[in-house]
Order: sequence, then structure tokens, then C-alpha cells
Amino acid sequence: MEKAHADEFPLTTDSSEKQGVVCIFGTGDFGKSLGLKMLQCGYSIVFGSRNPQVSSLLPRGAEVLSYSEAASKSDIIILAMHREHYDSLTELVDYLKGKVLVDVSNNRKINQYPESNAEYLAQLEPGAHVVKAFNTISAWALQSGTLDASRQVFVCGNDSKAKQRVMDIARTLGLTPLDQGSLMAASEIENYPLQLFPMWRFPFYLSSVLCVFFFVYCAIREVIYPYVNGKTDATYRLAISIPNRVFPITALILLALVYLPGILAAILQLYRGTKYRRFPNWLDHWMLCRKQLGLVALGFAFLHVIYTLVIPIRYYVRWRLRNATITQALTNKDSPFITSYAWINDSYLALGILGFFLFLLLGITSLPSVSNMVNWREFRFVQSKLGYLTLVLCTAHTLVYGGKRFLSPSILRWSLPSAYILALVIPCAVLVLKCILIMPCIDKTLTRIRQGWERNSKYTQSALNGKSDI
Amino acid sequence: MEKAHADEFPLTTDSSEKQGVVCIFGTGDFGKSLGLKMLQCGYSIVFGSRNPQVSSLLPRGAEVLSYSEAASKSDIIILAMHREHYDSLTELVDYLKGKVLVDVSNNRKINQYPESNAEYLAQLEPGAHVVKAFNTISAWALQSGTLDASRQVFVCGNDSKAKQRVMDIARTLGLTPLDQGSLMAASEIENYPLQLFPMWRFPFYLSSVLCVFFFVYCAIREVIYPYVNGKTDATYRLAISIPNRVFPITALILLALVYLPGILAAILQLYRGTKYRRFPNWLDHWMLCRKQLGLVALGFAFLHVIYTLVIPIRYYVRWRLRNATITQALTNKDSPFITSYAWINDSYLALGILGFFLFLLLGITSLPSVSNMVNWREFRFVQSKLGYLTLVLCTAHTLVYGGKRFLSPSILRWSLPSAYILALVIPCAVLVLKCILIMPCIDKTLTRIRQGWERNSKYTQSALNGKSDI
Amino acid sequence: MEKAHADEFPLTTDSSEKQGVVCIFGTGDFGKSLGLKMLQCGYSIVFGSRNPQVSSLLPRGAEVLSYSEAASKSDIIILAMHREHYDSLTELVDYLKGKVLVDVSNNRKINQYPESNAEYLAQLEPGAHVVKAFNTISAWALQSGTLDASRQVFVCGNDSKAKQRVMDIARTLGLTPLDQGSLMAASEIENYPLQLFPMWRFPFYLSSVLCVFFFVYCAIREVIYPYVNGKTDATYRLAISIPNRVFPITALILLALVYLPGILAAILQLYRGTKYRRFPNWLDHWMLCRKQLGLVALGFAFLHVIYTLVIPIRYYVRWRLRNATITQALTNKDSPFITSYAWINDSYLALGILGFFLFLLLGITSLPSVSNMVNWREFRFVQSKLGYLTLVLCTAHTLVYGGKRFLSPSILRWSLPSAYILALVIPCAVLVLKCILIMPCIDKTLTRIRQGWERNSKYTQSALNGKSDI
Repeated sequence: MEKAHADEFPLTTDSSEKQGVVCIFGTGDFGKSLGLKMLQCGYSIVFGSRNPQVSSLLPRGAEVLSYSEAASKSDIIILAMHREHYDSLTELVDYLKGKVLVDVSNNRKINQYPESNAEYLAQLEPGAHVVKAFNTISAWALQSGTLDASRQVFVCGNDSKAKQRVMDIARTLGLTPLDQGSLMAASEIENYPLQLFPMWRFPFYLSSVLCVFFFVYCAIREVIYPYVNGKTDATYRLAISIPNRVFPITALILLALVYLPGILAAILQLYRGTKYRRFPNWLDHWMLCRKQLGLVALGFAFLHVIYTLVIPIRYYVRWRLRNATITQALTNKDSPFITSYAWINDSYLALGILGFFLFLLLGITSLPSVSNMVNWREFRFVQSKLGYLTLVLCTAHTLVYGGKRFLSPSILRWSLPSAYILALVIPCAVLVLKCILIMPCIDKTLTRIRQGWERNSKYTQSALNGKSDI
Repeated sequence: MEKAHADEFPLTTDSSEKQGVVCIFGTGDFGKSLGLKMLQCGYSIVFGSRNPQVSSLLPRGAEVLSYSEAASKSDIIILAMHREHYDSLTELVDYLKGKVLVDVSNNRKINQYPESNAEYLAQLEPGAHVVKAFNTISAWALQSGTLDASRQVFVCGNDSKAKQRVMDIARTLGLTPLDQGSLMAASEIENYPLQLFPMWRFPFYLSSVLCVFFFVYCAIREVIYPYVNGKTDATYRLAISIPNRVFPITALILLALVYLPGILAAILQLYRGTKYRRFPNWLDHWMLCRKQLGLVALGFAFLHVIYTLVIPIRYYVRWRLRNATITQALTNKDSPFITSYAWINDSYLALGILGFFLFLLLGITSLPSVSNMVNWREFRFVQSKLGYLTLVLCTAHTLVYGGKRFLSPSILRWSLPSAYILALVIPCAVLVLKCILIMPCIDKTLTRIRQGWERNSKYTQSALNGKSDI
Repeated sequence: MEKAHADEFPLTTDSSEKQGVVCIFGTGDFGKSLGLKMLQCGYSIVFGSRNPQVSSLLPRGAEVLSYSEAASKSDIIILAMHREHYDSLTELVDYLKGKVLVDVSNNRKINQYPESNAEYLAQLEPGAHVVKAFNTISAWALQSGTLDASRQVFVCGNDSKAKQRVMDIARTLGLTPLDQGSLMAASEIENYPLQLFPMWRFPFYLSSVLCVFFFVYCAIREVIYPYVNGKTDATYRLAISIPNRVFPITALILLALVYLPGILAAILQLYRGTKYRRFPNWLDHWMLCRKQLGLVALGFAFLHVIYTLVIPIRYYVRWRLRNATITQALTNKDSPFITSYAWINDSYLALGILGFFLFLLLGITSLPSVSNMVNWREFRFVQSKLGYLTLVLCTAHTLVYGGKRFLSPSILRWSLPSAYILALVIPCAVLVLKCILIMPCIDKTLTRIRQGWERNSKYTQSALNGKSDI
């Protein structure tokens, strides 16, 4: 009997012409697409339908039967139907006993139901082996054959053999199955395709707020102030000049915010004297989206670079330069070459370029395929050493750009300082704190804490013993 | 007997020192390289050769025997010989019975023979289990140990156990085996290493045609016309000025052509009232190479950006600016600052920069390792929403650049309009059609069709039932 | 008995709630982190400790016992302790017999001990199955759940079943196990996490030396020479002008050095008349780090591009242009437009831009995820054909930039020629040699050698026979 069973469904990794029979409940779009794809890969497909006689346009070669007849043809059944109709399966409990039920359903909202569809199905069909899979694959991608987006199929289920068989099917279809563990993972898997860049949300909102704030701030200083004071129309500054202040400021602040949580964590560890207590949730979340923060900052830095490089093509700049030259020519005033100006100007350009270059390197190493090639030591070297060097260069770029103007009171307009002075607050604070943290005495304590030492432990003894352990 | 068999060839995933004996027929370059690599990975290698005594320079540790002797030493035989010599194997039919024959051969041309080499071999040796593998790996890569290019080994065959053993060998050699199904896939696998960017061919030819056409068009308007009319030598425009017209025009048209097939497909679906009919072949192919079209367009856009940014360093531009300034200074004519000029100029620069930035984002998300990280919804969001936004920005950039000049008849030269007016035809058409398609009434019908609804179906009933299915 | 064993440790790919018991020796930081992670993934964890009663802060749900008690609870034991304490395990020999011992240790220096830790352990515990694994994973990454860096777990060991079980654990933890073969690979695996970009070292040092040399050279010609001869202060050139000479020169030389070893190898093969003799070690190493050399060159080329594009924003440049304009306006001298100047200037800009564009394409195709998508022919096409085209364009860019100045003796300062003349030596040599090598007569011989033909072989016969083999 066991033998016969194995012969009937040689599904493991046998991908010769015969792949065995698979049953699909539901003749909707996804069901049809999946069935067609499986037929192409050598499976025999039996569709189960409530009205088998009226099911139209099914892939050629597939049979359509009633649910109960179809279920008896195969011991692996893919349920291509909405959760709302799962209760209709309760009458099939006897037919589905011992079968592998593959739940491919998705919901319309994240956490729409208290339990995941797959867990709900497992409750309805206690005798079946429920496996969650294929919900991240789109019908369109299956049909067109172009799997541009992810080929990853997240699979979970409580029965390892059932899971294995579903993973083999996925592999045969040219997809990449990923075992996500037990059915408890189903709700996460069901939420996954509904997510829209969850890790990018905080960086996105933060940078939006920063952009809007600094845009308004600069508009007040550079458009409204001259209009009120001198009736001059400086609205044309809104298109390039002001964005080219807002973008670098946002980039610099975001870059500093990438390194701030690490410093806060170090201070917290020093204060607590242990690393074995959880960080507050906000700090945890902040640390997890540092990569995204950094990449958004890189985007703004890139925009700043291009906005800066187009400066000499702008009508406004050309007009100003021409007028300055003509005025000078007409007044016949001599303008001597001031070496210190050249130094300051070239320095902040060079600092900015090098900072941007390192920033770009950081961005490239955060590409998944690149970061997979480096070991942990290399990754830490790049993201920490090079990262701080980038922050130092970019902060220095802004400081030198500001130059002597910091001291001049004439830059205050309506008592508002220049925007880049505000921009420097967080980066400078981060750098000062980092300098304090890498002072030998503090660094030593921190290193010990990070190696597992605890200041207030009852078991200091164990910490000493622990030295023999990794 | 079964037991003894298993002991002799413990090939599964046992990668301890002993990996079992593998026989290689043929002592050519690939045979030697593969043999050496396998020796290094712990296999015992027996070479089969027609003239075993004169086979030179084989890797140390390998035995050389005649075909029949070598075949009897192992039950897995790698055929490192050209298809032309397969008929010499017919005399070995008895020796090869039940053995795994690995066909590693490649042809010189795509579809050189009516059937694939592996299928031909399977006909010659009906008793053997033929597996196609390793043909995509280069001898040089095996020798040098640097597998910079793909480590992917496509494997196909009708016997799943034989295939599994070959895949295990590939894995042991540090390669990534990919199961491609039955031997029917062999011809595709044999064609693969002969392909030279097949998906890039159409985008490449299309962009070449566009480039040449617009280059000639612009040369006529900007070099030949002034020469004929005013005997002025404007040939220096050929190096930068004209390419910097041709590149953005090509980029914009290609970008529009990325989105045109999607619109044509939607119109076709609306017209047919169903999505269950295949698109014409040209539309299918066009849709499959949209990614490549978009990346070529990005390349041209990148060139346009750099060509634009070097404008102020050009001798011609500096000379013109200097002369304009001097003329103005000498004539002492006042040139007032015109805010609307500044607005138009800054606007099209800003639109262009933002468009290029989004375009670059699209390009980055199409990197395989990045697109593997996003789910289907995120991928569609980026490629569709951001894609259209990019197209809108780039079209607006061109429109604003043209500005009032569209209306002026003075831009006609020999009744030829400016090149960018031609460039705008397709993008504007795409955007207008898209606007029509996203109007609620049309969008609703289209969404229903895409969810499987059919207008003219005999089985409308089933479509309504189908609502319960995915 | 066999049956019971299987029931007790259903570790294969069963990732239902129960994953079996795993024992961890050592309660250090890594041990705790790994234990916590495994608990979260459904394993039962037993810690083995020398002082079980004082072991603090272990993950909830884990038991702490003495070594011998803990060892008896599981037949898979992870040793999270330093090599220095392995000798304390000798007294447990009887308890560890037949168990899977997972060595996760790292050393402080590369090749710190004569044999790897895992091999040392295997000697101490001859009855146990030692598997090396998890040493490339950081405790921090396990704790935080963010595996930004590599998820790759290199696994090696002499017993394939033991190895398989460890790989299954790695997979359950969400990591990617990679089978590296027998325990002989352990020392390489132990050295891996201590490496800091080993392949980048030579390119890095080489480019540093080139940079420093050319920086000093240019500083002598452009800062010290004018100071000595004319007492003019040109130090401001150190920030941008001189780097913008050094970077392109370094980039061009490095790019040429990418292609030089291939040419040297070809010459060597021609000279020896065979390809079956190893290249000298230095040439081998050079060939293996060509990709890194090229990427470093690309970095310098990128810096050169940005340094060039900021030219018109520089104070020094603006001042010079303004002064030139004013002088011309005041002296009322006519400056005619010289077409040949425009041609030369535009040509070298266009050559440079196209060269940089192709260089960037080369860089993108060397991304791991991209190079995995192309077949061998495509990879060679890009890296060789496009690579040489890039070198030709970049060399032409420098040649045209130099223009007529090559002939002028006035560019000698203290008999030092311009730096870019030095820069051209290697690229021109490479291109000339390549031109010689692709002459039909030489190319034919070379191709035959690369297909396995040997000039001085005793077995020329075999080479002729070999024609039937791949």
C-alpha cells in the first residue's frame, strides 16, 4: 500500500515527462495560470469546480471535475479560491483527509482576519496537511513567463513531507522555494505581498518632513524676505536654487541619523553596564532601517550633485556672471586673485566630491549581491569606517562652504540663520559623541560590554568564566 | 546487489575525500580541464581515449584507458567529444547500457542540427541515461579557477536519478546546477552558450536606427543648412552638439516605447473583451524586451546628462559667452534680468534632473539582486507608477525646453521642424492614451477583464461563479 | 534502535514546531546568541557549562547542565568555546563518541596554528564527527536579526550525514549553507572571516603608489616650479587641479594594467608553444585581480569626471575667464572663432564621455548578480571587446587632449614632460602589442595553442587526434 502510494505520486525531484497528477480547486485566473504553467512543466492537472460543465477556457489537456471527484484523483490539492469560500470545503472533509492542501490565497488588507487563511483552513480540515505557498507569485507573471519580479516562493506548513513536495513543485516550475517553518509563519507570508516597502516608510516620511521644513524655511529667507524688504521677485529661486539647499541639508541630516542610533545604543549599553537588555522599540526599529535611511540620503546627495553641476548652464547664473564682468569692465576696477578664496572654494568642492564618492561606494556595497560577497569583517569595515569617513567629509564640506559666513551677523534674516547652520547641528553632535566614545577608556569598557561582560551582574564570576567561551 | 551498487557510487552529497570514479571520454581541452577540476574535488578520474598510449599531458592521477575499458570502470561517463564523433560510440552500446552519459557538447551555430546533440545521443544509446550538462561552463574558467562568469550549470535529462547525480557533481565542483526538465530542453541548453544578448538585439537595432536617423536629420538642419545658406562651417557641432540632441531624443522615444506595448495590450484586451487570447507575436516579443529597451534608454539618458554637463567647459560655448559679454560691454547695452526666462530655464533643468533621477531608480531596481528583494506589488509600483512618472517628467522636460519655440515658424529649416518636436510625438501619444485608459469607466472594464471576466463568453455564468476563485 | 534514533532527531528538513534538541557547549556571547536564535526557530537547547549554576542571562527556555550531562541530551553539540580550551574536552571522549561536534571557532590571526581548529578537534575526539560551520556569522547579526552582511555559512566535514544535519540547521535559521567539502577546507574557512579584502590589496597599493608619485610629480611641475621661477603662489592647485591630473592618469594606467597580463600570457603561450604550463605566480595573481584593478580604475575615472564637471564653478576658473574677457574688452582685440580648436576640444570631451560610459557598463556587468545572468560568450564579449574599446577611447581621449602640445618643447619644466605623456606609455604599449597579437598569422597560432595544440609535444599525434574531442 505504501509502495503503491509512492509510485502514484513520484513528485520528489523526478522531472522527467511524468510529474504526477495535481488537483487545482477553483478555475479563477490564478488557478488557470498555475494549471497552465504546471501542464507545461509535465504535470497532469485536474481542476475541481463547483460547476464543472460551465468552466470555460481552461488550459488544453486539463480535466474539469466536481470538487469531490477531482480530490480523489490526486493527493495534492491547490486551493485557488478566496478564503470566504473555504467553509464550502467542510463538506469535503472526508475526501481531503491525508491530502496535501496548498493554500495560495491572499487577503486584501494586512491582518484582515484574526488568524491567517492557512491556519483557518487547517482548522476546517484537521485531517489534511495544509501548506502555504505560491501566494507571492502573480498570475500575470506565470502566464507571460517573464518572472521579472521575485521568483521566491515562501513555503510553510506543519508537515515536513507535505512541505517538501510543494517545494519540489515550485522548483520544477522554475521558482525558488524558501522554507519559512511551521504554519505559524503563514500570516507573515500572507502579509508579505501586501506590503509596500515597509522598511522605507520611516525614512520616506522623515525625509519628506525634513524637505518640506527646509523648503519653507529657505523660501522664507530667500524669496519672501527679499520680496517684503526690497520688492524683488526671487520666485525663480524655487526651481533650482532652493532645492539645491534643501537636498544637501536633508542628505547630511539623514546620513547623521544613520549613525546616531548606534551611538545612542552604545551610550545605553554604557549606562546599563550590560548588552543583555533589549533596546527600546523605537531604537530597535531605527537601527533596522539605517540602510534605507542611508540610501535615501544617497538619493538626495545625488540630486545635490546634479543640481550643483548644472549651475553654470543656468540663465540666472550666466546673466549674473555676464553682468558682473561688464560692470567690472566698465568701471575698470581691478579684481585681484585672492588665493585664500581659491583655497576655500576648491577645498569644499574637493571635500564634497570625495564625500559623495565614498557615499556612492557605501551604496554599492549595500546592493544585496555585493554585500553577499563580503565577510562580516569587511562589511563592518565598509559600513562603519568608511561610513564615518563619509560623514566627516560631508560635514567638513558644509563647514568649509559656510566658511567665515558663520561669524557674520549679516546672514541673519528675520533672525533666521542660514539653513546649513541648522543642518550642521545633528552631524556635529554625532561626530562629537563618536569622538568621546572612541576615547580609549570608554572604548575599552564598551568593548568589554559588547563581548558579554556585565557591570552589575550577580554572576560576575560567570562572566569571568565566560572568557573561555565564544 | 542494490546495496553493492549504492556503495560503489556514493555520489549523493557525500563530499568526503572519496567521491567515486567518473569516466571522461575524450582528452581534448575541455575534457582535461574538467578532469583536473574533478580530481581536485576528490573524484577518481578515468579517461577514455581512442589512442590511450599517445594521450599527452593529462592531469596527474588520472588513468587513460580505451573507451570500453574506461566505460567499465564507472557508471557515469562524461562525453567530452564533438557530436560528429558520436557514431563511433555505437559499437560501445553494450558497455554503455544503464550508464549515465553526460553530454557536454556545444555546436558552432544555433540550431545547427535538426535535433539536439543530447537527443541524438539518446537515440544512439537507447540503453543509457543521457543527461545534458556542463556545456555552459568554459574550459578556461575551470582551469583558472576564476568563475567570474556564470556558475550556472543547466541540467536536463529524462531519468531523474541520473540527473540528480550529475547535479551533485556540479555542486561538488562549486557550480550551481539548475534542473531544466526533460531532454526536450537540451536544444535550448545547447543554444544558450551561443547566444549573444538575444533580448538586447531588438532594442539595440531600434536605438541604432533612431540614432542614425536623428543624427542625419540634425546634421542636415544644423550643419548642411547653414553651410548652404551662409557658407558657415558648423561641422564642429558633429562631436557634441548634435549627439546631445540625438541622445535625449532616442532616450525619450525608447522610454515611451517601453510603455506603448502595455497600452496596446490593454486596447487589444478591451477590444476583444477577454484576456484569454494570445497577443500577436510581435507584441509578445516587444513586451518581453521592455526591460532591455528601458535600460538602453537609460544609457542614452546618462550620455545626455554628461554631454549637457560638459557644455560650460567647451571652447565653443566659452568663446560665444565671452563674445556676447564683450559685445554687450562695448555697445554698453543694458540686458535686464527676465524672470520668466529664469523660470523656464530652471524648470526644464529641474524636470530633467528629477526625471533622470527616477529613471536611474528604475534602472537600479531592475538589477537582478534588487528585484529579487521586492514583492510583486512593490515591483509593479516601481516599474509602473514610477515609470510613468519618469515618462511624464521627461516629456515635460522636453516640452518646457521647446517652450515658445514650437509656435515660431523661424525654426523650420527647409520645412524641417526641430528634431525634438518629432521626438515628442510618441511620448505624448503614449501619455494621452494612458490618460484615456485610466479614466474610471474604461479602467473598470479593463480591471474586470484582467481578473478573468469575458465579454463574449458563452460561459458568462462561469465567470460570475469564478468570482469565488482566485 | 535505528528507528528510535530517527525519531529522536528529526532534523532533516522537518521544520514543524519540534526541531529536536541541540546542545551548545559554552555560554559566551556567541553561544547565547546562537542558542536564542535556535530556540526561536523551534529547537530545544541545552547549554553545557563548566559552572552551570553561575551561568547568567541565558535565553529563557534553555537548560544549563554540566558538559557531560548536556552532551547526553543531544547527539549534536555546538562548541562555542575558544580553541585554547579544547583540551578540557578530552575527558569527555566517551560522552562525545558518535556525536556531531560543530566547531564554530575563529582565530585571532590568519594561520595562527599549524592545523585548523576543526582538525585539531577531530584529533582530540577521534570518535566524533567534527563539522566546521557558523564561524562566518556574527553574534550581533544573530541577535539583531538583521543579517545585512553575508548569510552564507560555509560547512565542511568528513562525515556527509553529520554535515547534512548541520546544513539543515543553518537552513532552518534562515542562513545559506555552502558545502565546502572535507575537513581539509576548515583552515580556509577559519581564515575567511579574518580576511580584509585580500584581492583588493594589490590594486589598492598599486593605485596608492601611482597616485602619490604623480601627485608629487605634478606638484613639482605646477606648484614648486612656478614658485621657484616666478615666486607665484600656486598652492591652491593642490586641491582640485592637480588631483584632476592624478586621477585620470591613475585610472588610465590601471585600466591598461587590466589588459597587460592577458597580453603577457598570450606572449608566454606563443613563446612556449603550449598552454599546458603554469604561468609564473606573479602573473597568475595579477590575472586573478584584474576585476579589482578595473574597478579601482573606474573609481578614479569617476572622480576625474566629477572633478572635471565642477571646473566651471571654481572661483579660480571664473576669475580667470572674467579677467580674460575684461582684458579682451578693454584692449578691444578681436578673438576669431577657430574651428579646429572647437573640433579638438569637443573631440576629446566626446571620447572621454564615451570611454567613461563604456567603462561604467563594464563595471555594472561585473556586479555579481549581473554577471550571473550572462553566458560565457556574452561575458567575454563585454569584458574583452568592450574592454579594449574602452581602453582605446580613453587613450585617444588623452592623446587628443595632449594634442599639439606633445611637440612643443615649452611644456618641459626642469626637463620634466607633462604627466599625461608618462601616463600614455603603458596604454599605448598595451594597444600596440594587442594589435600585433590580433594579426591573422599570430592570432591563428594563438588560437590553436588555446585549443590545446602544442608545438613541441612528443605527442603531436595526440593533438591531432584530440581534434575529435572537446
